[in-house]
Amino acid sequence: MQYEDAVKEVYEIVKPKYKLFTAGPVACFPEVLEIMKVQMFSHRAKEYKIIHRDTLDRLRKFLEVEDGEIIIFPSSGTGFMEAAIRNAVSLNGKVLVTIIGAFGKRFADVVESNGREAIKLEFEPGNPVDPNALDEALQKNKDVEAVTITYNETSTGVLNPLPELAKVVKEHDKLLFVDAVSAMGGADIKFSKWGIDVVFGSSQKAFGVPPGLAVAAISERVFEIAEKMPNRGWYFDLPLYRKFNKEKDGTPSTPPMPQLFGLNVVLRIIERMGGKEEWLKMYQKRAEMIREGVKEIGLNLLAKPGYESPTITAVLTPEGIKGEEIYNAMRERGFELAKGYGKGIKEKTFRIGHMGYMTFEVIQEMLDNLKEVIDELKRKKGL
Amino acid sequence: MQYEDAVKEVYEIVKPKYKLFTAGPVACFPEVLEIMKVQMFSHRAKEYKIIHRDTLDRLRKFLEVEDGEIIIFPSSGTGFMEAAIRNAVSLNGKVLVTIIGAFGKRFADVVESNGREAIKLEFEPGNPVDPNALDEALQKNKDVEAVTITYNETSTGVLNPLPELAKVVKEHDKLLFVDAVSAMGGADIKFSKWGIDVVFGSSQKAFGVPPGLAVAAISERVFEIAEKMPNRGWYFDLPLYRKFNKEKDGTPSTPPMPQLFGLNVVLRIIERMGGKEEWLKMYQKRAEMIREGVKEIGLNLLAKPGYESPTITAVLTPEGIKGEEIYNAMRERGFELAKGYGKGIKEKTFRIGHMGYMTFEVIQEMLDNLKEVIDELKRKKGL
Repeated sequence: MQYEDAVKEVYEIVKPKYKLFTAGPVACFPEVLEIMKVQMFSHRAKEYKIIHRDTLDRLRKFLEVEDGEIIIFPSSGTGFMEAAIRNAVSLNGKVLVTIIGAFGKRFADVVESNGREAIKLEFEPGNPVDPNALDEALQKNKDVEAVTITYNETSTGVLNPLPELAKVVKEHDKLLFVDAVSAMGGADIKFSKWGIDVVFGSSQKAFGVPPGLAVAAISERVFEIAEKMPNRGWYFDLPLYRKFNKEKDGTPSTPPMPQLFGLNVVLRIIERMGGKEEWLKMYQKRAEMIREGVKEIGLNLLAKPGYESPTITAVLTPEGIKGEEIYNAMRERGFELAKGYGKGIKEKTFRIGHMGYMTFEVIQEMLDNLKEVIDELKRKKGL
Repeated sequence: MQYEDAVKEVYEIVKPKYKLFTAGPVACFPEVLEIMKVQMFSHRAKEYKIIHRDTLDRLRKFLEVEDGEIIIFPSSGTGFMEAAIRNAVSLNGKVLVTIIGAFGKRFADVVESNGREAIKLEFEPGNPVDPNALDEALQKNKDVEAVTITYNETSTGVLNPLPELAKVVKEHDKLLFVDAVSAMGGADIKFSKWGIDVVFGSSQKAFGVPPGLAVAAISERVFEIAEKMPNRGWYFDLPLYRKFNKEKDGTPSTPPMPQLFGLNVVLRIIERMGGKEEWLKMYQKRAEMIREGVKEIGLNLLAKPGYESPTITAVLTPEGIKGEEIYNAMRERGFELAKGYGKGIKEKTFRIGHMGYMTFEVIQEMLDNLKEVIDELKRKKGL
């Protein structure tokens, strides 16, 4: 390398300094980082087509898609919020947006900024969507075309009871759009069985791949509506992506190839670990270890019992201590957690992500340090 | 690595097999590939903010932006086509789309699929936009809100006379949107001096970085219009991106961090090579070497003399030989060129990309092989 010093300068800034318990991007598997550095080539070449097709097939199996199509976008997960609204909801049409935290609010923003109306059904931070309240809202708003659900709310660490909520949505025969950005890869998704119309995730969360790639399963019903939807745009035009899947084993514009290769590697790792069930058990085990460790320290969780997320835990700070103080103290000890996120809870929570590459030894080390940090902060403040 | 075999399986498919002369993604600089494998972390962490800000500053200098803002999207370059139309052109408003090949047509598709009207001004493949014809079209269509120009048409290897065309557009006081996907980094761009409103490129072309990141400079005038534009969406909402640049040194949703780091490395390499002028000279030198080599073989170029692209050369095949035959024969010899692209010229052209990482020795080797391939094909066909 002729300009190795240029790499060194950038590396000095971005090199790993912390053990990561972030909300995303998360630590990637070493196997993924290894493939990230592969030389590029044309996305219309045969070699790309093989990986494209293989990744779609693996995702179809992982998400249990019988009818419907796997679509990948060169975008962050939010791209699919925009796609779902522009492809499948009429201009000025109504969408029932359920909100249990900051990312539910984002879906409402996407609905409104695309000229549709968001009917908001909001719950207090820490709570999931109540199926009865959802049923009532749909009784009252018979003209909504779709319902949005945040499967796993990254800001509060709550996992919504998706199968139950999906059942309610289907009883009212509405389209169901599921934001699974921090769920996909860490919580089970049974696309066809649960009757989902759009479910999307992204590379940088529970799959443990760098950011840049969004992934979704889309129902036939959405394509039928989309094909007749005017002004649905080009960049997130779902029928166009399906056409390119079928005819070119590719995407309409250039995809983030390294991330796609990385995701393909992870899907092969999942297979080697014994398949989806074993992989999800790993996520459950991590989450339980962290929840129990946090409780042993004497801290409480934000999530209502029974709805704790398998991928991220939001912890209430002890009275008199701010979330950011804990975040900063842990950072000084070499652990990057996540700050609180969202109105009203930013200061009184901090979050521990448990996605991506992570060993149980490091989790224990993090918990030991967290105990010391809390003790120190309490002592310092005379609490 | 516990699952090294999973990486090996994918690597076997995607590993470098060819010397690349592709239209993009192109071969990346080894320095870029080195940083692509760095471990991830939060895009809201201080370390990300440093690179974000530094990359914006370097791009501002590279594109000569005085007034206006550098915006990066987690998308392919086409994302900025959609952004320009949705942020700065009224619904049902008219756009004069100049077309000199397939990517001009794409801009028209983006205009129309977003509910705007495309007035098309089309030229024969190989020709640039004629400034007089542009002037006439603007005289005739006084109600267009914007003009689109493909700076470098990847499908025909033609570089438009952008400063001259920009002057015409400014005389008519229209917005100017420039698709510089295969130009940015390989052809000069003087954003403020030329009076451009939107100019966009992407990581995987002349910068020699993997795909996934789009880059643009946006004028103040566009932001003024955008702030009042209804239904401009969320994902490509330009004022929202500017707000995040200013307040968070980041993007509204997660950016493709490895590609951003890669681009930052390339911008540092450009600085070390002596700055933009020296870097662009390298591109000119490559282009001239390839054009002369091709002519020596007895082949003709598609581009009208004086408008040849510095980043990609479209070559007319000898009578009786199809472009794909040459592409395939070169591939067998270890060189990946690009096939012809676009209606009417796909069969009778092939293309030689000269973007990204490439030595002059390999260019010579490619030319030597091309000569042999053409001779062989002619002999085989008795031409």
